[in-house]
Amino acid sequence: MNITDLDTPTLAADLDVLERNIDGMAQHCQQLGIPLRVHTKTHKVPEIAKLQIDAGSQGITCQKLGEAEVMVDADVDDILIPYNIVGKPKLKRLTALVQRARITVALDSEETAIGISQQAIADGCVVPVIVELDTGSGRCGVQSPQAAQRLAQQIMKMQGIDFQGIMTYPSNVRAKPFIEETLNLLSSDGIPVNIISGGGTGSEAASKEIGCTETRSGSYVYEGMTRVGNSEMLTPERCVLRVIVTVVSTPTPERIIIDGGMKTFTSYPPTPYGHIIEHPDAKIYGMSVEHGHVDVSECSHRFKVGEQLSVIPLHQGMTSNLHDKLVGIRGDQVETTWQIAGRGKVF
Amino acid sequence: MNITDLDTPTLAADLDVLERNIDGMAQHCQQLGIPLRVHTKTHKVPEIAKLQIDAGSQGITCQKLGEAEVMVDADVDDILIPYNIVGKPKLKRLTALVQRARITVALDSEETAIGISQQAIADGCVVPVIVELDTGSGRCGVQSPQAAQRLAQQIMKMQGIDFQGIMTYPSNVRAKPFIEETLNLLSSDGIPVNIISGGGTGSEAASKEIGCTETRSGSYVYEGMTRVGNSEMLTPERCVLRVIVTVVSTPTPERIIIDGGMKTFTSYPPTPYGHIIEHPDAKIYGMSVEHGHVDVSECSHRFKVGEQLSVIPLHQGMTSNLHDKLVGIRGDQVETTWQIAGRGKVF
Repeated sequence: MNITDLDTPTLAADLDVLERNIDGMAQHCQQLGIPLRVHTKTHKVPEIAKLQIDAGSQGITCQKLGEAEVMVDADVDDILIPYNIVGKPKLKRLTALVQRARITVALDSEETAIGISQQAIADGCVVPVIVELDTGSGRCGVQSPQAAQRLAQQIMKMQGIDFQGIMTYPSNVRAKPFIEETLNLLSSDGIPVNIISGGGTGSEAASKEIGCTETRSGSYVYEGMTRVGNSEMLTPERCVLRVIVTVVSTPTPERIIIDGGMKTFTSYPPTPYGHIIEHPDAKIYGMSVEHGHVDVSECSHRFKVGEQLSVIPLHQGMTSNLHDKLVGIRGDQVETTWQIAGRGKVF
Repeated sequence: MNITDLDTPTLAADLDVLERNIDGMAQHCQQLGIPLRVHTKTHKVPEIAKLQIDAGSQGITCQKLGEAEVMVDADVDDILIPYNIVGKPKLKRLTALVQRARITVALDSEETAIGISQQAIADGCVVPVIVELDTGSGRCGVQSPQAAQRLAQQIMKMQGIDFQGIMTYPSNVRAKPFIEETLNLLSSDGIPVNIISGGGTGSEAASKEIGCTETRSGSYVYEGMTRVGNSEMLTPERCVLRVIVTVVSTPTPERIIIDGGMKTFTSYPPTPYGHIIEHPDAKIYGMSVEHGHVDVSECSHRFKVGEQLSVIPLHQGMTSNLHDKLVGIRGDQVETTWQIAGRGKVF
């Protein structure tokens, strides 16, 4: 099938670029000597996770339990969930999942640890956990090496929960003293540390330098504005995703309207809201919920109703989350269609 | 079931407020003497569309063909699609739908009209259409009364397509001369006008004043920041939706983290990204993809891991589109669960 036969707006992945990005990161980490654990929140597609594992990733990362369930259903085995699992419904789902696959979860409080411990005891299993450190990101995480030590000590006393190590995000050399002091305190307590997990695409070398046993990288798989930093680098050579859209209106010589807006691309700023591959001079200056407003005043091309365009979206993970399917293309041919099975699994 | 037993983040609708909003708009339009055709892109739930029809709406509006298909599947009959239907796959779907229900579509170009005409002839049906006028919104629409007349004349010559009238968005008294001149030109050609469709929540009186035969209102059903304009008016008394979340981390006395971020609430600005009903002094100042970052420095309440909060999101239509299910609640009880059947139907 030719891509021009697709209904639009359709989310498509350039498979050549996808494979190049996956292989490139795998080689990068191998050269650095830091094991890679890919983060799948960017794509949420089990088939892509398997391509990444085949390329050498030692398992995957899922930000939400629901995403991990989808991946286990697709026979992915080794999963880190770097997220506090809280509340009875999720705790039951967690222990059910732990009995089906190798699952490790991060946590940062005694309350979270107690919840996991009690549910694991009730369900007759053991949940491997790591303690999250806030080494400067200002999100979750214990605030000091002493707090990490205290929480590790508490975990060591609980049943049904197995202390495996620590994690930080994003990896940064400034985190080194926090991590080293934590390791020293745990060592003085005789608490073994098997996992030191770092992460964030672009911080692989930092993960190595601060002593991590693995690095979590996700957005590299698609690339996009939030990583490359400016639209001039949003070129087809680096970016996997494109939203194939149709021109549905040409109301004035300066403006065309495409059939995708905020519910197709997200409303994530800044403008232009995407890079039109065929006509880089055409700028998506505005979006309604279902319309994209494009300034074509600097284009010599005369756009026609019915014409298809390929738009590289800005925030590829957010855009991906709005679509049910991902069409894999090579050149102008449709090679495969994948369900974005983890889409919408926010719980 | 009590809402505290729900897994989170869960999208919930306060049914008392929903019913009040639906009845209020129905009465408002009845008092004005302008028929209402609700826009369903805000909720995308067939059951809510039916509540609106039962309250007096004379049919519904769907921004995308895929949403209309979902509504017809749920036995909603009278649907306006105010959107140019372009391209072979959609044209085939349109003619299939026209043979199942009363569907009217808007268009603004001869190319769109020809596409519909040819497909309708091939499939042996007739598609009712209206011409969209750009009366100042700067999106789709013909640019002048003369252009509207020209397009209507062209449509009148085509088979398989039935000119029914005109539409504008949003309704505004400044559109009156454009509409009146268009009607005069069509009248001089002897072209009958059955539909003059206006729209936009809050412009019902303007729709009446400029001579519309119906007014399309959508966002009123949920209310929210994009309509009420500032967070001080984001009160439970007016707003239907809430995202029920759980506190998953309390890393510092000033900061808590909730289990919903950009993929739960959208990244639509401004901050605070939502109104926390139980603690209005707690401000959602930041969002990661799956974390909400809340400043609780002005709260006397001491938040605990595991505590549930109810957050009124900013852009209720965008938020609704991120969730598969909507839980209907009354007080603290779950009364029903609806599939958001039109979610993700961007094509």
